[in-house]
Amino acid sequence: MMAKTKPSSSHYRAPSDQKVILEMIQYNERDYAMQADIPVDELISHLKKDQVNWINVDGLHEQSIIVKLGQHFNLHSLLIEDILSDHQPKVEEFDEYLFITLKMLHSIKNNKIEYEQISFVLGKDFLLSFQEKEGDYFGEFRQRIKQSTGRVRSRKADYLLYRLIDIIVDNYYTVLDEVGQQIETVEEEVYKNPTVKEFQNIQKIKKELIYLRKALYPLRDALSKLTKDETGFIEQASIRYFGDVYDHVVHLIDSLDTYKDLTSGLMDIHINTMNARMNEVMKVLTVISTIFIPLTFIVGIYGMNFDFMPELRLEWGYPIVMISMAIVVFGMIRYFKYKKWF
Amino acid sequence: MMAKTKPSSSHYRAPSDQKVILEMIQYNERDYAMQADIPVDELISHLKKDQVNWINVDGLHEQSIIVKLGQHFNLHSLLIEDILSDHQPKVEEFDEYLFITLKMLHSIKNNKIEYEQISFVLGKDFLLSFQEKEGDYFGEFRQRIKQSTGRVRSRKADYLLYRLIDIIVDNYYTVLDEVGQQIETVEEEVYKNPTVKEFQNIQKIKKELIYLRKALYPLRDALSKLTKDETGFIEQASIRYFGDVYDHVVHLIDSLDTYKDLTSGLMDIHINTMNARMNEVMKVLTVISTIFIPLTFIVGIYGMNFDFMPELRLEWGYPIVMISMAIVVFGMIRYFKYKKWF
Amino acid sequence: MMAKTKPSSSHYRAPSDQKVILEMIQYNERDYAMQADIPVDELISHLKKDQVNWINVDGLHEQSIIVKLGQHFNLHSLLIEDILSDHQPKVEEFDEYLFITLKMLHSIKNNKIEYEQISFVLGKDFLLSFQEKEGDYFGEFRQRIKQSTGRVRSRKADYLLYRLIDIIVDNYYTVLDEVGQQIETVEEEVYKNPTVKEFQNIQKIKKELIYLRKALYPLRDALSKLTKDETGFIEQASIRYFGDVYDHVVHLIDSLDTYKDLTSGLMDIHINTMNARMNEVMKVLTVISTIFIPLTFIVGIYGMNFDFMPELRLEWGYPIVMISMAIVVFGMIRYFKYKKWF
Amino acid sequence: MMAKTKPSSSHYRAPSDQKVILEMIQYNERDYAMQADIPVDELISHLKKDQVNWINVDGLHEQSIIVKLGQHFNLHSLLIEDILSDHQPKVEEFDEYLFITLKMLHSIKNNKIEYEQISFVLGKDFLLSFQEKEGDYFGEFRQRIKQSTGRVRSRKADYLLYRLIDIIVDNYYTVLDEVGQQIETVEEEVYKNPTVKEFQNIQKIKKELIYLRKALYPLRDALSKLTKDETGFIEQASIRYFGDVYDHVVHLIDSLDTYKDLTSGLMDIHINTMNARMNEVMKVLTVISTIFIPLTFIVGIYGMNFDFMPELRLEWGYPIVMISMAIVVFGMIRYFKYKKWF
Amino acid sequence: MMAKTKPSSSHYRAPSDQKVILEMIQYNERDYAMQADIPVDELISHLKKDQVNWINVDGLHEQSIIVKLGQHFNLHSLLIEDILSDHQPKVEEFDEYLFITLKMLHSIKNNKIEYEQISFVLGKDFLLSFQEKEGDYFGEFRQRIKQSTGRVRSRKADYLLYRLIDIIVDNYYTVLDEVGQQIETVEEEVYKNPTVKEFQNIQKIKKELIYLRKALYPLRDALSKLTKDETGFIEQASIRYFGDVYDHVVHLIDSLDTYKDLTSGLMDIHINTMNARMNEVMKVLTVISTIFIPLTFIVGIYGMNFDFMPELRLEWGYPIVMISMAIVVFGMIRYFKYKKWF
Repeated sequence: MMAKTKPSSSHYRAPSDQKVILEMIQYNERDYAMQADIPVDELISHLKKDQVNWINVDGLHEQSIIVKLGQHFNLHSLLIEDILSDHQPKVEEFDEYLFITLKMLHSIKNNKIEYEQISFVLGKDFLLSFQEKEGDYFGEFRQRIKQSTGRVRSRKADYLLYRLIDIIVDNYYTVLDEVGQQIETVEEEVYKNPTVKEFQNIQKIKKELIYLRKALYPLRDALSKLTKDETGFIEQASIRYFGDVYDHVVHLIDSLDTYKDLTSGLMDIHINTMNARMNEVMKVLTVISTIFIPLTFIVGIYGMNFDFMPELRLEWGYPIVMISMAIVVFGMIRYFKYKKWF
Repeated sequence: MMAKTKPSSSHYRAPSDQKVILEMIQYNERDYAMQADIPVDELISHLKKDQVNWINVDGLHEQSIIVKLGQHFNLHSLLIEDILSDHQPKVEEFDEYLFITLKMLHSIKNNKIEYEQISFVLGKDFLLSFQEKEGDYFGEFRQRIKQSTGRVRSRKADYLLYRLIDIIVDNYYTVLDEVGQQIETVEEEVYKNPTVKEFQNIQKIKKELIYLRKALYPLRDALSKLTKDETGFIEQASIRYFGDVYDHVVHLIDSLDTYKDLTSGLMDIHINTMNARMNEVMKVLTVISTIFIPLTFIVGIYGMNFDFMPELRLEWGYPIVMISMAIVVFGMIRYFKYKKWF
Repeated sequence: MMAKTKPSSSHYRAPSDQKVILEMIQYNERDYAMQADIPVDELISHLKKDQVNWINVDGLHEQSIIVKLGQHFNLHSLLIEDILSDHQPKVEEFDEYLFITLKMLHSIKNNKIEYEQISFVLGKDFLLSFQEKEGDYFGEFRQRIKQSTGRVRSRKADYLLYRLIDIIVDNYYTVLDEVGQQIETVEEEVYKNPTVKEFQNIQKIKKELIYLRKALYPLRDALSKLTKDETGFIEQASIRYFGDVYDHVVHLIDSLDTYKDLTSGLMDIHINTMNARMNEVMKVLTVISTIFIPLTFIVGIYGMNFDFMPELRLEWGYPIVMISMAIVVFGMIRYFKYKKWF
Repeated sequence: MMAKTKPSSSHYRAPSDQKVILEMIQYNERDYAMQADIPVDELISHLKKDQVNWINVDGLHEQSIIVKLGQHFNLHSLLIEDILSDHQPKVEEFDEYLFITLKMLHSIKNNKIEYEQISFVLGKDFLLSFQEKEGDYFGEFRQRIKQSTGRVRSRKADYLLYRLIDIIVDNYYTVLDEVGQQIETVEEEVYKNPTVKEFQNIQKIKKELIYLRKALYPLRDALSKLTKDETGFIEQASIRYFGDVYDHVVHLIDSLDTYKDLTSGLMDIHINTMNARMNEVMKVLTVISTIFIPLTFIVGIYGMNFDFMPELRLEWGYPIVMISMAIVVFGMIRYFKYKKWF
Repeated sequence: MMAKTKPSSSHYRAPSDQKVILEMIQYNERDYAMQADIPVDELISHLKKDQVNWINVDGLHEQSIIVKLGQHFNLHSLLIEDILSDHQPKVEEFDEYLFITLKMLHSIKNNKIEYEQISFVLGKDFLLSFQEKEGDYFGEFRQRIKQSTGRVRSRKADYLLYRLIDIIVDNYYTVLDEVGQQIETVEEEVYKNPTVKEFQNIQKIKKELIYLRKALYPLRDALSKLTKDETGFIEQASIRYFGDVYDHVVHLIDSLDTYKDLTSGLMDIHINTMNARMNEVMKVLTVISTIFIPLTFIVGIYGMNFDFMPELRLEWGYPIVMISMAIVVFGMIRYFKYKKWF
């Protein structure tokens, strides 16, 4: 059943050798329990009907665990395939649960945005979350559940899902801020000294924006689907919360578009400034050449060795030539000034 | 309840230390009352059922005030979050009120458009307005209500909302006019003397247009939603007024697009003019070089010190060389004229 | 009631001091009457129920006239505001009439398209038309009504409206033809001699197209609304006629797009041709420089004044140097030919 | 009734002096008759109820014929106007017939695509076709009807219409193939020798594509309307055939888009190759100049006529200078090699 | 019936002389049979009602076979035409079967993507597949059916169709990966040494992407139609599988768009780097020229042969000139350093 996975490298992730970590948090308004790192069978036996059961799986390389979870929760084979392979953000409805997969952004390293795929299965009284690697942004939130601050404890699994997605989307703002700062840095440089390196930096930012877009556009569509959910997995009162996350994603996309336009503007300025500098260089060359090439010709004339050159014999020949040349130079400079080449 | 606010800097505004100012205007066709700067509890106790109660809040940093208003008017936690954080223009329907948030443009300083977020909560007999800072464009309008000119006094809170939004949107025209004048100024300069600075000015105008677009596009969508409102907070007779504001925003967007196209055209002209000047400079260099480099070679020949150069001994050698060179120059000039390099 | 008009300059037109001219044409299949330049009250008293009453207002600066018409025909305050201010083409339905506003193009002066706003109010048995200035394209058509040629006399006010709009749209073709001819003129010039002026002309044509687009796109949407009219102001049999005008506008927009693409193509050719000429100039410079600079060096060698330069003493020194240089020149020319620089 | 035609030259075609040719083909499964070049009244009197009556009109300048046909078949005045003027492809439903107008492409002459407008009126038992000029691509198909090959004879007028449109659309492939070959020819040239002429050829191909697009996009929309026809003029069994023609047009548009992208790519290559050649030329100039200009300076030094220049007196002065210069040249060449300028 | 095929070369494939190969696989949960290379009549007589009958046709040039299959399965003449001609991917519903045609990608040879058209006819208990040439990617899958691994044997013909399409789409990933690698290779080269060849390679990749887009976009639309199938040929339980393939195609298109953006970015970098190198070359020329041209003029002065040039007689004339020139050089170098030309 697990056999069918995409063969192509861009589509499937090689298994790593980290350990898979299982964690279950169970709560309702009164009770709270947390169990970490226990075998999957034991974990399943502890599920409680009247509580929210949040099972988090860190690491996807031990298929046996996911198969067992899959059997217990009756997960569709295509759903498991989507969890295991690199998939675009999407929401899919099944009879017994909702399936959501999206990207959790980490940081920008070498102009590449590091991300991790996170998938959720939302049932009536449970939420499964599958992460590729250990480490997430839910630490503080787990404390909140435990300490019963906020309204999480009084609500169902759908609100838990909302909170987790909200935390993930909040983190997008951090990454986008970083991109914004990169743009500002490059902008300053481009105005000061536009080199090829600056241009390549602009291109790298464009690349980052391309990858962010790839994560955000399908996420928007997925969340839009959630806000119109009619399956009942998301309670009417919670719909508005997902609408709020949806708004944030729309806002993020909007900022993305703004950044894209700013980057294009930077490219235009870069090219224009480079051209302007080229023009300046050319002007210097032209000014120097047009002044000295004719003069060199004149002095060349009187360097000729003809026997009969009467000017050479004149006492005032030399000063006259020098003064004539000075006049030529003066005229040319006036011409260049008039042409605004200085 | 107030705890949840977006953590990222681009998304949340630091509290300032200005005082929060509360103001309430109450009116119907017969009566009018205005109370400013009174405690929030007192203000709430003065609300009257048969009048339009307009509560305006200047400054958002004292959360206790907003919380108290929130409790009295039963404002949703997400709504309060939207008031407090920097949000895109939007309209959202709630059971007991309509929520509208938009941007109030102030002016262009250093090619950055200054704006302020303003949010409205429209109930059956009240209108709450939340502004970031003191100072708005409603002064003259407040006088009108007081003096009972215009039709405001005879109508409900929805008409009040329309008037306020209309005043805000009118102000967009002023800002857009300013951008239009900037474009004209730059255009003149570009035709006269296209420098890198001019090009950067074009880019700055493009930036302004990007930011205006960010404010206007979601505003259009929000207003479109208002004109299709079926919740009853906006009376049937008032819908047409919101349709009118919607028309203005569509008109503004249209002007925005026109400005965008004009700016692109200016960029093209700028680049083209710079290139044409470069060509002109190159032509001067080429004309001077191609005339004098060969001549310099000729005079170089007769500057050689060979013992046996019969030409040097000829009486007519020098004049012949000079005349030959004059012919070469004349031929070249004719060639350049033919090639239209002058 | 008339007080509310947009304050911004781009949005409101200053009143002129021309006289406002009123004209009423009344007709049915049997009767015809025309009254011009009479007071508005008298005009209103002459309205006849069983005839088509076409009231045309030339000039909008005497508000009292429009107010009186507004009172009699029960015109909405927003509608009057739209007539008086510069508005995008649109159709709006009211309970007692249809409101249509559009642009009447006049001509192209200095690459600016002159236009005038014309608004219509279509009721069951009347048609009001409001023009900014005297002078329109309806003269010939007025004769037709009088002489009862064509089918106008046997039909209602909606058919009259169709005919007027049709005449206005026909005039768009004239303007677009003019733009088309401008493009052809510029095209020829660009192929022959691409200067900065030509480029600016292309930009001016682009500007014209931008302004035409601004008039045509909303007009298309407005007409599309008319063809789907269900208010009954337009009879079923007339819908097809408005559909025909709609087709013409779609055709105009299509031509506009074609012109836009042609203009972009011209810009590309212009830039490319300028670059090619630059290349040609550079080649001439390079050919002349690479031929003569080395030669000048060679003759420079034998212009040195060293005491011990055996070549200078040789009888064949001079001819040998000259022949060597001829060989160098010949070789270089062959190289340039091979490189296709000639 | 015929009076109303568009006044603008771009919109209306001048009448030619060719004769109008009328032809009627009548058939059902058993019978077949063809009558050509008979008066229009006689033709109308021959119409048969139980057969398919295909009346083809070659030439549109004799309005009396079209008026008579119009009266007999009750053709709407707007429809006749559309037949007579140059109209975009469209489908329009009338009570008694369907009206279809489209372009019949002929060939590409001087990079202009020659086409002819062809209009159809499809009734229950008749098909009218109006062509601008004599000559079409239906010759072979007429033979088929006569010889009763294919399934035409057993079907109604709607199938006849399908076959005619299919033949017209098939001909589009021929024209598009021609464009494809032009692109290949230009591509080869651009890779070999990118001149301004090549660039203009690319622009001409772009123009052809613009004109093809103008014919194809509205045709697609018109055919799409036919495939959703619910008027009953097209039988259910024939809908699929029109769907097939629709598919072909979609395919043609797809090829058009591909050609457009290829042409843009060619433009990019052209510009880039021209720039690269420019760079090459500049490098040659720079190499020659940077080698010989300093050398010329050195030999210039020893050409000075100072009385006291000790080097000039040295026996080894000349060879030393020559060797020094050789070293300079050698060093520069190494530098250029290092910079990859060769 | 077979007569009607598109006449144009781009639209119809010349028949080859390979042999047509027929193969039939029949299975249900218990039974399995395979027959290859038997006459078409015999094959038809072996069809079994209670099994899935998969008939695969390799090669389309023997029309008699397809005609016979067409007669038995009642295939529509337009459908047969679509199988035989080069058609865009599409899904079409018929009364007795579903028709699907798409492209099977093979590999990239000389920057051209090789593909083959594959068509399916899905009935209640049969699946016909038509391939242009021998050789496909189904070999392994045929073994699976035989060995009854996976769930194929327990399901109907619609699941078989899904598996085959899934295999074809999986192969798209391989091709797209190859394109991705080409982009990376070119990227490295462009950063290192941007030549015209590199630019042409980018263009070739763009071409590949254009051709991939042509295959993928209509495929997405076709699959989208399948997932909404209501004809009953695809069972409810299988719809989700087709949805999964649809997701993959959307993902592929998304990657395609990313690659397109990356390629555009590469073009920008290429052009910018070339320009920057040009600038560098120009700077070297300008530095050398502006240093040595004035110096050459100075030494030229003292090479003049005037009888009265007092400087020439001075003992310190020569050293003073040399030192002056050294100062000029030093000043210029400082100026260039200041201008950041080094």
